[in-house]
Amino acid sequence: LNRGFSNGVLVSGVAGFIGANLTRELLSQGRYVVGVDNFSRGTKENLSWTESYGDQFVLLTGDVSDSENLGSLLDIAGIAQKSLLEVIHLAANSDIAAGVSDPRIDLKDTLLTTFSLLEFCKRSGIRRFSFASSSAVYGDHGETRINETTAPLFPTSNYGAMKLASEAIISAACESFLDVGYIFRFPNVVGTPATHGVIFDLVNKLKSNPGPLEVLGDGAQQKSYLHVSDLVDAILYIKSVETAGRVVFNIGPVDEGLTVREIAEIVIQVVSPSREICFTGGDRGWLGDIPRFFYSVDKLSSIGWVPVMGSRESVRRAAVEVAGQLCCA
Amino acid sequence: LNRGFSNGVLVSGVAGFIGANLTRELLSQGRYVVGVDNFSRGTKENLSWTESYGDQFVLLTGDVSDSENLGSLLDIAGIAQKSLLEVIHLAANSDIAAGVSDPRIDLKDTLLTTFSLLEFCKRSGIRRFSFASSSAVYGDHGETRINETTAPLFPTSNYGAMKLASEAIISAACESFLDVGYIFRFPNVVGTPATHGVIFDLVNKLKSNPGPLEVLGDGAQQKSYLHVSDLVDAILYIKSVETAGRVVFNIGPVDEGLTVREIAEIVIQVVSPSREICFTGGDRGWLGDIPRFFYSVDKLSSIGWVPVMGSRESVRRAAVEVAGQLCCA
Repeated sequence: LNRGFSNGVLVSGVAGFIGANLTRELLSQGRYVVGVDNFSRGTKENLSWTESYGDQFVLLTGDVSDSENLGSLLDIAGIAQKSLLEVIHLAANSDIAAGVSDPRIDLKDTLLTTFSLLEFCKRSGIRRFSFASSSAVYGDHGETRINETTAPLFPTSNYGAMKLASEAIISAACESFLDVGYIFRFPNVVGTPATHGVIFDLVNKLKSNPGPLEVLGDGAQQKSYLHVSDLVDAILYIKSVETAGRVVFNIGPVDEGLTVREIAEIVIQVVSPSREICFTGGDRGWLGDIPRFFYSVDKLSSIGWVPVMGSRESVRRAAVEVAGQLCCA
Repeated sequence: LNRGFSNGVLVSGVAGFIGANLTRELLSQGRYVVGVDNFSRGTKENLSWTESYGDQFVLLTGDVSDSENLGSLLDIAGIAQKSLLEVIHLAANSDIAAGVSDPRIDLKDTLLTTFSLLEFCKRSGIRRFSFASSSAVYGDHGETRINETTAPLFPTSNYGAMKLASEAIISAACESFLDVGYIFRFPNVVGTPATHGVIFDLVNKLKSNPGPLEVLGDGAQQKSYLHVSDLVDAILYIKSVETAGRVVFNIGPVDEGLTVREIAEIVIQVVSPSREICFTGGDRGWLGDIPRFFYSVDKLSSIGWVPVMGSRESVRRAAVEVAGQLCCA
């Protein structure tokens, strides 16, 4: 069995929040997608709508932190490795706090997945690799607007560290066997199907607890928020414009973001108006959190892309979407 | 058995080139040193002189890429983990070309050694960590003078990638359980006991082959060279001046380095005058090599340290030393 396509894209973490959204767009553009997920956080329900695409979408269940395992999964599914043109690597641990207490989580789920997917590319002759990196690679730069040449890169969490480590081995692979390595550094991304993140947590708390909304930290932490629809659009835009070498872009809104207090207020307004807020205190929500974060997307603007929504609109829309997702689950 | 000291330093890769030199200085300053090496490249002969230090030096044989194994080694040797004040981590794969063809070498010998030593520190309450990083974390910046805030960090080899990955997890550990993480980024270091590197290779070729000296690349690659005695001095100086947080320094000579052709000429002059040179051609000695490299040590100068020797003097002295080492081996 050879499924007979030649422009296939392998998407790791396909059943996660970003994976499901990106795959929807890839399929609608006529791409063949082979998705793989270990379903540690992603769910098959996130991909239920793919049924209408028939053979254009293949779902593999398994872990990509072992490249031989991935080869076996493809063999069993009857997919020739030469039918794959590129890899889009989204699989990662997304629980930052968990990775601080046990660094092996980020090592395995974030770095070793990248490592083994690169091994897989080298062995299979796949020369295009896209990676979901993060603003967390930068660490804490205070009031500085962070752009792609900001340094030193001192991540404050193992999550950020293993994202940076992944970037590093992709860079080395670009010297050796890749034609292009895309590194997309994005901040907090919001929307549905949510599996984690501040909006997901706040909506959950409001739904499960009748008292005041408990918010981690002092509410002053300020960050940028991007809606997943804008993120997917930016990724595909960059891939269409830049086609060789090491391609690194910050992706985010053009504004300076919202405070956690503002987010809590928006979520309350949408889900449960008149609820009060109580803050746990401290300038960080958790160990490894960054209190303030100013993100420059000038490089992305310079190639002609701007998001449809700003941070406030993204958060408001996501709050409505997440509330809908959780009420019907 | 508890050896009863409380200011011990654990040195990984103790039997290697830099490990042996650094340990000599630490012992002469009265420090207790617990050295560990898997003797993949280092040798016991490199440490034969330690006998005169008696109980001030303990040598453990084993691999530090497994933190539980390290704990067992210490237990067997009767060393309480609380007797260790700090870790100086030098163990790494030093064969850049080998790591390009098999990325698992750098993953295990460079990154996983750092990862497990950090695990060991967290478990043992050790709050000071020094790391032998490399100018290779920067990648190719052409004619730019590279300082500690140069970015983006796009290593061209898995060697450089896993050094950068190591820096990243040390940075995360500084947020969580380390008081200080030293990141020493050095360029080519020369001297004895040599186990690898351009001078070692050239002297070896001259001794084992009567024909013209074959040099990889076109001879125009230009880099900085630091003598190991200066390196050790710089490391100890920085550790005495900077005592908290993430401490990153380029270490190197203040000049712009030498070309490979100049190095070959110096080595020939020392070892085998009148020998001819033939170049294999191409602007890189090997895949992942960087043709030109200008290294700023302004930050190190600004805290009051300058090397005794420049690149030329370092190379000349190292050529004499390496020739002596290899003639008597």
